[in-house]
Amino acid sequence: MTFPTIAVVGGTGNLGAAIAWRLARAGYPVIIGSRGAESAEKAAAELGHGLRGATNADAASAAEIVIVTVPFAAQDSTLAGIAPHVVGKLVVDTTVPLVPPKVMRVQLPAEGSAALKAQAVLGEGVTLVSAFHNVAAHKLAKDVDVGCDVLVFGDDKAARGRVVALADAMGLRGLHGGALANSAAAEAMTSILIFLNKTYKVDGAGIRITGDLVPIEE
Amino acid sequence: MTFPTIAVVGGTGNLGAAIAWRLARAGYPVIIGSRGAESAEKAAAELGHGLRGATNADAASAAEIVIVTVPFAAQDSTLAGIAPHVVGKLVVDTTVPLVPPKVMRVQLPAEGSAALKAQAVLGEGVTLVSAFHNVAAHKLAKDVDVGCDVLVFGDDKAARGRVVALADAMGLRGLHGGALANSAAAEAMTSILIFLNKTYKVDGAGIRITGDLVPIEE
Repeated sequence: MTFPTIAVVGGTGNLGAAIAWRLARAGYPVIIGSRGAESAEKAAAELGHGLRGATNADAASAAEIVIVTVPFAAQDSTLAGIAPHVVGKLVVDTTVPLVPPKVMRVQLPAEGSAALKAQAVLGEGVTLVSAFHNVAAHKLAKDVDVGCDVLVFGDDKAARGRVVALADAMGLRGLHGGALANSAAAEAMTSILIFLNKTYKVDGAGIRITGDLVPIEE
Repeated sequence: MTFPTIAVVGGTGNLGAAIAWRLARAGYPVIIGSRGAESAEKAAAELGHGLRGATNADAASAAEIVIVTVPFAAQDSTLAGIAPHVVGKLVVDTTVPLVPPKVMRVQLPAEGSAALKAQAVLGEGVTLVSAFHNVAAHKLAKDVDVGCDVLVFGDDKAARGRVVALADAMGLRGLHGGALANSAAAEAMTSILIFLNKTYKVDGAGIRITGDLVPIEE
């Protein structure tokens, strides 16, 4: 088993830090990226497990797999900033198109999904996969059962499989969800989960796929 | 407890027949609608439980709650056909915007969802709710645990609550999912479930919301 170096761009945020922590704990070399190197280094030191910090651009440059965890409003500019550093690499976009203040309302972008928007910004030279839309960051940040499957979308099946494996290594269940266009389903579901949290007083609702799934060979 | 009369328009199809059967079994007076009265009457007789059959228009006329279960390609014409008979009533649209042959690919309509499309066809004189997008019809048709939550969408909270109660009466778990626009999430998820069925050899994958949901008073 090899452990590719992973950059978590926007890794000082709640979701990014939790993903970085789980992956580092599983043995992956992980670099947290942030706009400023100093805050990234500080966050990395606090999380431990050998995590390092750098600017988003430096983190993306140094990594084989680049996970992007930024708010929807920062997606375009963040991706444009790392674009020169991710050509030929696997980029995992986690963006959920929440549009404040109505975050409990599904508001998919004109492109159909944040994932398709990311592909448009990064171009065809990048292998794009989207995932981790539905996991509650505050649960992921602790050593608890997150209770949420990770649907993984992308037009490249092998690349999707690598991200399914990352989710599995993080103690979650990763599942192939089909084409990148299918990301709309998981992205939209996040607004429903926020609505459910409020309506049914849930501390981080998630989704599970039911049925007898036969494991597939990656 | 009162049992409003329910019409299931397109009730000779797999999903419609299963919904009609479960509701009739739970004590609701149910009329199956179809384009031809004869096929509706035949299907009703086969399902038992006091089910009746009629044309879609007659079924809609006679009912207080009208559940529409037709393929996406027939949604517009079916809704236009019953429109004169559902003014002031509660209409439950179950349409999933599957576009053959690529049914495993999310292809939401320009309106954002099939539910918003239905609202546009029926107009504001109808109270529209959408639900039952993710349940596997062949499981619903049997006396088995379907293993799938029913997310219910609509801009009228009380109307949504009535449909949550219908789902509960059918032996499922109905959950408020928020605004009608949110229906996009469950509609899109159906393509993912079809993909999962094929990829992981599942006999009818479903979704469950995880977390400790506190029941709410309807």
